[in-house]
Amino acid sequence: MGGAKVRQRYLHSVTKDEALQKWLGSCPLRELEGEVVAANQALGRITAKPVHALQSSPHYAASAMDGIAVWAKDTVLAAPLRPVKLVVGVDCFLVDTGDPLPQGADAVIMIENVVLEGTNCYIEASVAPWANVRPVGEDIIAGEILLPRFRHITPVDLGALLAAGVGHVSVLARPRVAIIPTGDELVPPGSVLKKGDIVEYNSAIISGEVELWGGQPVVWATVADDAALLSQAVAAAAAASDVVLVIAGSSTGRGDFTVDVLEKIGTVLVHGVAMRPGKPVVLATVGITPVVGLPGYPVSMHLCLETFVKPLLHAYNRQPLPPLARVDGILTRRLVSPFGVLEHVRVQAGYVGGQIIVTPLGRGAGVVSSLMRSDGMVIVPAESEGIAEGETVSVILRKTLETIADTLVCIGSHDLALDVVADLLRVSYGMHLQTSHVGSMGGLLSLKRNFSHLCTSHLLDEASGQYNIPYVKRLFPDEDMIIINLVERWQGFIHRKGDTFTGWHDLSKGRFVNRQRGAGTRALLDYHLKLQGIDTRTIEGYTREESTHLAVACAVEAGNADVGLGILSAAENFGLSFVPVCLEQFAIVMRGESLSDPRVVALLETIRSREFAERVEKLGGYETNKSGEVVWSSHAR
Amino acid sequence: MGGAKVRQRYLHSVTKDEALQKWLGSCPLRELEGEVVAANQALGRITAKPVHALQSSPHYAASAMDGIAVWAKDTVLAAPLRPVKLVVGVDCFLVDTGDPLPQGADAVIMIENVVLEGTNCYIEASVAPWANVRPVGEDIIAGEILLPRFRHITPVDLGALLAAGVGHVSVLARPRVAIIPTGDELVPPGSVLKKGDIVEYNSAIISGEVELWGGQPVVWATVADDAALLSQAVAAAAAASDVVLVIAGSSTGRGDFTVDVLEKIGTVLVHGVAMRPGKPVVLATVGITPVVGLPGYPVSMHLCLETFVKPLLHAYNRQPLPPLARVDGILTRRLVSPFGVLEHVRVQAGYVGGQIIVTPLGRGAGVVSSLMRSDGMVIVPAESEGIAEGETVSVILRKTLETIADTLVCIGSHDLALDVVADLLRVSYGMHLQTSHVGSMGGLLSLKRNFSHLCTSHLLDEASGQYNIPYVKRLFPDEDMIIINLVERWQGFIHRKGDTFTGWHDLSKGRFVNRQRGAGTRALLDYHLKLQGIDTRTIEGYTREESTHLAVACAVEAGNADVGLGILSAAENFGLSFVPVCLEQFAIVMRGESLSDPRVVALLETIRSREFAERVEKLGGYETNKSGEVVWSSHAR
Repeated sequence: MGGAKVRQRYLHSVTKDEALQKWLGSCPLRELEGEVVAANQALGRITAKPVHALQSSPHYAASAMDGIAVWAKDTVLAAPLRPVKLVVGVDCFLVDTGDPLPQGADAVIMIENVVLEGTNCYIEASVAPWANVRPVGEDIIAGEILLPRFRHITPVDLGALLAAGVGHVSVLARPRVAIIPTGDELVPPGSVLKKGDIVEYNSAIISGEVELWGGQPVVWATVADDAALLSQAVAAAAAASDVVLVIAGSSTGRGDFTVDVLEKIGTVLVHGVAMRPGKPVVLATVGITPVVGLPGYPVSMHLCLETFVKPLLHAYNRQPLPPLARVDGILTRRLVSPFGVLEHVRVQAGYVGGQIIVTPLGRGAGVVSSLMRSDGMVIVPAESEGIAEGETVSVILRKTLETIADTLVCIGSHDLALDVVADLLRVSYGMHLQTSHVGSMGGLLSLKRNFSHLCTSHLLDEASGQYNIPYVKRLFPDEDMIIINLVERWQGFIHRKGDTFTGWHDLSKGRFVNRQRGAGTRALLDYHLKLQGIDTRTIEGYTREESTHLAVACAVEAGNADVGLGILSAAENFGLSFVPVCLEQFAIVMRGESLSDPRVVALLETIRSREFAERVEKLGGYETNKSGEVVWSSHAR
Repeated sequence: MGGAKVRQRYLHSVTKDEALQKWLGSCPLRELEGEVVAANQALGRITAKPVHALQSSPHYAASAMDGIAVWAKDTVLAAPLRPVKLVVGVDCFLVDTGDPLPQGADAVIMIENVVLEGTNCYIEASVAPWANVRPVGEDIIAGEILLPRFRHITPVDLGALLAAGVGHVSVLARPRVAIIPTGDELVPPGSVLKKGDIVEYNSAIISGEVELWGGQPVVWATVADDAALLSQAVAAAAAASDVVLVIAGSSTGRGDFTVDVLEKIGTVLVHGVAMRPGKPVVLATVGITPVVGLPGYPVSMHLCLETFVKPLLHAYNRQPLPPLARVDGILTRRLVSPFGVLEHVRVQAGYVGGQIIVTPLGRGAGVVSSLMRSDGMVIVPAESEGIAEGETVSVILRKTLETIADTLVCIGSHDLALDVVADLLRVSYGMHLQTSHVGSMGGLLSLKRNFSHLCTSHLLDEASGQYNIPYVKRLFPDEDMIIINLVERWQGFIHRKGDTFTGWHDLSKGRFVNRQRGAGTRALLDYHLKLQGIDTRTIEGYTREESTHLAVACAVEAGNADVGLGILSAAENFGLSFVPVCLEQFAIVMRGESLSDPRVVALLETIRSREFAERVEKLGGYETNKSGEVVWSSHAR
């Protein structure tokens, strides 16, 4: 099987830097032909040769102000007490800014400095030749180099081209990038999906990036897992393109044809790089065309794209790679990474309590949403086995620091009402609310460590039957804390329509799906199980954990579980049945000092707005009449 | 006349900050309608509402690795000494990564951890339910918010949309920006030019910027200087657009209709801002449409565009303004600015001797080439009368700091051979050579002050008749200096074909055009005038200064002067006649330590290359057999 073969090959894998050096050093860079485009179509293109001005600008000696054009030598004797008289139309001429100088005139006197009486014009000071005149070519001189070779053409350049009479420019052709998806399991976006089908969306991501990097993407037809067909497609693409990208099918087992094909019809420079994700990348050439075999998982694919394809396109376009924006931040969660592997971890970043905080996202190579949600990337060196929580890490940013600093960070339990808050803050205040769903207890601990501005929590205390307050008192004994009601919401059992589920004692009959430890919903479950006297060991699936209401409902809908505890809107999202258990308090916990943060003020205004109430109630299962109320405060306010 | 009227109005001009606040605070921002586009056309667009996932990804429970799918409970008893036997096709199934789990199976065991014997499969360890399985919705759960409102859609987002079954997205319509050029003197690019014609290129610059800022530019027909016609055009454009930009004719005298028209058909919020350039800007509304009257000079126009239109388009698109990149640098030349005016000066920046050096470019508002050549902008506060040479200034960069740091800075005399060097460095080394033309003496002084890496010089010493060496000895008495020959070139008199010019004593007969003080060509002239015993006062135009050979030739060609001293290629550029005077040394001066700078090594290799010699000799008037030779060195090497 494929597994063993792959492992053997990887024994020879090289480091990322070695691979990159080998790749850029030895892969051919076809000389791109220039193409001629109209100047007004040249925005963002790159000049293929130096562009010379065809005409001067201004192309005539022009008055630089409103005034009279004169012969400078006629003015030599003028003085305040001995004005010189000139006759308009004979010795001098009225001109506006930009007007040509009448033939022979060689200076302009400002209109404010002359006295006009009929056709007589009196001047009280001499003027030097060429004073207040824009000479021919003041801006651009015919024949001079206007734009150097390999210049990325800006809007201002367009203006200069037209001013210099240059109607057409020779620009570099955009490197043609052939994208070949492979895999029997791939179906086009929009298909009705069967089990085992994979939507082919990698080519859309690649096309977008290639366009942003100045290339010309061409998506070729998907190739089945068949060496002969792949060989044919790659050969044809290599002949027609400047770069070829083969996307492996997501199955790395039986269908790992790419490297074999490339070995047969070309030269494999690198197979396997000691980095994660992206390890199985293949760097090769077919004829004089560079060919990259990209892994099929989107996170791996994207890293390989950025690592090996982006510099290639910039080299083709003769542009330097844009510098990476970096910032140091504090890691909020331990990062484990095996020794010898250069690990790339997508992270979210926030600015809390005067420092950048950095939270790793899930590391599944197949999770495109982690790419989408990431604010940046942390690279764990190969010679490290990980980075401890609280250590300083360097983050390669993909957002501006300003956006990160403006974002309100909320870590805690998840609720759809938070999506409504985020949306309203965006619409009314242009603000960003970043939410991370780690459960109520995780949220409180994050708040405690100053990793967030806000925490969402619905922790039921078993002893007192009270929500949140006992936990906050315990965790923040001497601090100024406040708890504000966000919504009240119905929790209940979620099960498939048609299945019978009447209450607590049916839990032992089907497969349960639980929430993670520290989640408020899990605390709620445990509280009720104790009340009901039910042993958790009698519940199949009690140890199976999902981390959001939607994930629980999704597992039930997919038939991988029969029942879970969650909120009504999650059940309704999947058309599932809902057996109510209780109305619970879902609250926001924060430090008292946050009340003076204008972003928090905006948040509270939003929560107390009519629009929030209306939109949340539409979701179903919510009560908003207490939204925005202070539930508890450690200090008098 | 217009002048007086304009001055009166400007008495009421406001500061830039006041103007901006009034403008963004009170100008209406029309609610942009959304439009629905196919997901694969949505790159760079902005979501008009939150986008929900339509399907989960994965949409089935999938194997996360190559292995066998099992029922976890069947494996509970497995141990190394007590393997459990499963039958392939009955109790377990071979699966590859991504394959769906056979109905009911709930875990996968890695292929490496099983022993296969025919259809029997032995396992030596138990597996937990759902181990090595990607659950439904691991990446994306149907119903969840995939992209928030007002998200700028990235390539990765495209992938996520397709993965989530979202084929179409509702995006904000791009704000429509009407651009109305005005002025009788405007002619379209490509016209055969008469005196007084101005090529209308501002609309091309504006269109380009508007596109980059996410707007949709529409250039309307040029309107003549006629209030009724302008009124009609603005009203029509305001009704059809989200922003209207009126570009004043470059004549600000007789044709200043814009503000009058806007007062009549709309509301003028601001007319005149205490900033330079850009003072005459008009900010108004017509109906609910913001209208900006932009000055016609390109530098003024561009500053007003960046100041007042860019934030408007970002507000329409609900995107924050990208932060300005700033860096501190040392000012190489004094900047004078009147008190009370916020002055914006375009600058070039370099990195020399461990510090950023900042050189102001010419401040003519009509000089589009200063925009094109600028690396950034320095703002002189209104309450300052200028900034002294050597002071630290903050530069708003439009290039990356990396590009600036990589650029070799050459200040001194100008020669076309330098353009050839710059082009070859770009082609062969991807290097940037920035040249500033301030004459030989200015160049040596810049080198002395560490404002440049290199100086180009051709200073003839009157006493010794020797080039460059006496000057370098005098200016750098104790320093390690080196002079390297770039080219030898012919200097001579440039005059129009058909005019008689035989030599030195004809200089008193026509109008001369001279070079600036400190220019090598001026030193050459003075040296020969002294040899010939000619009094400079007998030469009309001796005091008229141009700063390059091309500018001298251009003045002669335009008929604004009859003769000048310059190089052959400048004469040939304009088809002028050339009377040779002498072959002179044109050299590069630098510090000895620069020889170890790899960029200087590349430069010397270039100068000594066959290609350089060939290209320079093709220009005419050059000798290259000594190019790259060390002319003189203060230290033995």
